Amino acid sequence: MSDNITFIGVGAIGLPVAARIAEAGHRVTGVDPRPEAAERAAGTRIESMVTNMSEVDELATVVVMVATPTQLTGLVDDALEQDLNGSGWIIMSTVGPDSVRTEAERLQAAGAMVIDSPVSGDIPGTGTGSLTLFTSGAPSDIEALGDVLDAVGPRNVVGERIGEGQAFKLVNQHLCAIHIAAAAEALNLADRMGLDPEKALRAVENGGAGSRMLSDRGPRMLALGQIEVHNSIGIFVKDAGMVVHTGHRCRAQVPLAEAANQRYRLAADMDLLTEDDSQVIRTYR
Amino acid sequence: MSDNITFIGVGAIGLPVAARIAEAGHRVTGVDPRPEAAERAAGTRIESMVTNMSEVDELATVVVMVATPTQLTGLVDDALEQDLNGSGWIIMSTVGPDSVRTEAERLQAAGAMVIDSPVSGDIPGTGTGSLTLFTSGAPSDIEALGDVLDAVGPRNVVGERIGEGQAFKLVNQHLCAIHIAAAAEALNLADRMGLDPEKALRAVENGGAGSRMLSDRGPRMLALGQIEVHNSIGIFVKDAGMVVHTGHRCRAQVPLAEAANQRYRLAADMDLLTEDDSQVIRTYR
Repeated sequence: MSDNITFIGVGAIGLPVAARIAEAGHRVTGVDPRPEAAERAAGTRIESMVTNMSEVDELATVVVMVATPTQLTGLVDDALEQDLNGSGWIIMSTVGPDSVRTEAERLQAAGAMVIDSPVSGDIPGTGTGSLTLFTSGAPSDIEALGDVLDAVGPRNVVGERIGEGQAFKLVNQHLCAIHIAAAAEALNLADRMGLDPEKALRAVENGGAGSRMLSDRGPRMLALGQIEVHNSIGIFVKDAGMVVHTGHRCRAQVPLAEAANQRYRLAADMDLLTEDDSQVIRTYR
Repeated sequence: MSDNITFIGVGAIGLPVAARIAEAGHRVTGVDPRPEAAERAAGTRIESMVTNMSEVDELATVVVMVATPTQLTGLVDDALEQDLNGSGWIIMSTVGPDSVRTEAERLQAAGAMVIDSPVSGDIPGTGTGSLTLFTSGAPSDIEALGDVLDAVGPRNVVGERIGEGQAFKLVNQHLCAIHIAAAAEALNLADRMGLDPEKALRAVENGGAGSRMLSDRGPRMLALGQIEVHNSIGIFVKDAGMVVHTGHRCRAQVPLAEAANQRYRLAADMDLLTEDDSQVIRTYR
């Protein structure tokens, strides 16, 4: 059933994910209201680009990579004007458990099958297939939509209930958001103590202080000049905010996440929203 | 010059370090005022245990593993009543750059050579030689005392100035303190969101969210019953406090370290000071 794919939200991460699905042999129609999305999709194997879902003849298999819960709600509002009976939806956005549950119920009431499968990784990772999917949903639905998931990354089913994928992703983002801010704070502390921060990074990264984010972002934090954007500050303004919000909703204390969230918001205030997340270090200087 | 070693501070980490130095063929006299220190040293190759430095005939090579800057100052006060000319001192305590510089100057003024070499690792690590030393000092002094360092862990010279070893150690402790508290916060968040925290740990630890502390402490955070102490909460009450203090001294912002420090202090208030640092998770429950 998944030969014709409608891919909604062809942005920085969406574009390479949609391109991988197209390369795996599916016919992909991209939907994105931004004119630059169509320009950037040119030269990939994405079949066609439209600006609105109403331009798609039939919604068969739909992959959603919009940025926010509000966008997801608007998208479902629009979709419900079409016949969704028998359609299959994969929500790859990080929108949090509450949002995905609410919108999945609306789609399911219209006869659609839905799986929750947020994606973790950065822009270079989408090209190499090193993305992590946190997938949850009914096993039969995951099986039915499995070939599309497989085009994106290794299968990683974390539960049978819609919302579990989002919850695992939030645990992941909780740690990533803190580890990146901690790396920035540590390298700035090294500098302020009069150490060479490059040397400090090398001295600690392979011992007990090591983290994947320290070794990945650390060098870009210390690089001079224009820093390539692997994952934007904007992603963590959204995701760390969602972690804090969800923590409060489920009565979990999240003071470290709050402190990290504050750094990304400070970075946004410094107009760094579209810069690489490693540049959160500039809030410390 | 380092056949006769005076090892001061034979505590939880000090004992196995002193024992390793003795096993490498040095004659070690342990100094510790606590009666239980002598009991615990029995059965190791530590030659003798005394309660006060004045009981040691001659201070030739001295290894210091006391717990706090105040204890280091008191120790140097006492030592200066003896002839220190030509003695060699290795400060393995984590006391921060300011304290080690001040006390090293006093010892050097009395004719001693001093190197700064705080140790990173946990109690099981001392037995297997997997400790990390952050060593700084004059190259000739490090060479002269190198055989004692080599008994403890691989050589890792980070600078030529006293205080640099401490500064690298603080960068290390900054990250470890935050990563442990972040792991506790994330696993508690997973639990509050209705996930199985064991499954959440496994789902995220090998991806972008991974850290050495998450994989090491995570399983002990989720274990039931009595948890073996690898490194006590008390160590992080001291070290995270020192990171925050040093950050303020050198005008580095350290909000994540402050949030982590607060968790260890909360754990101390809950009478967990001598428990394993993984038990900081109990402050979240």
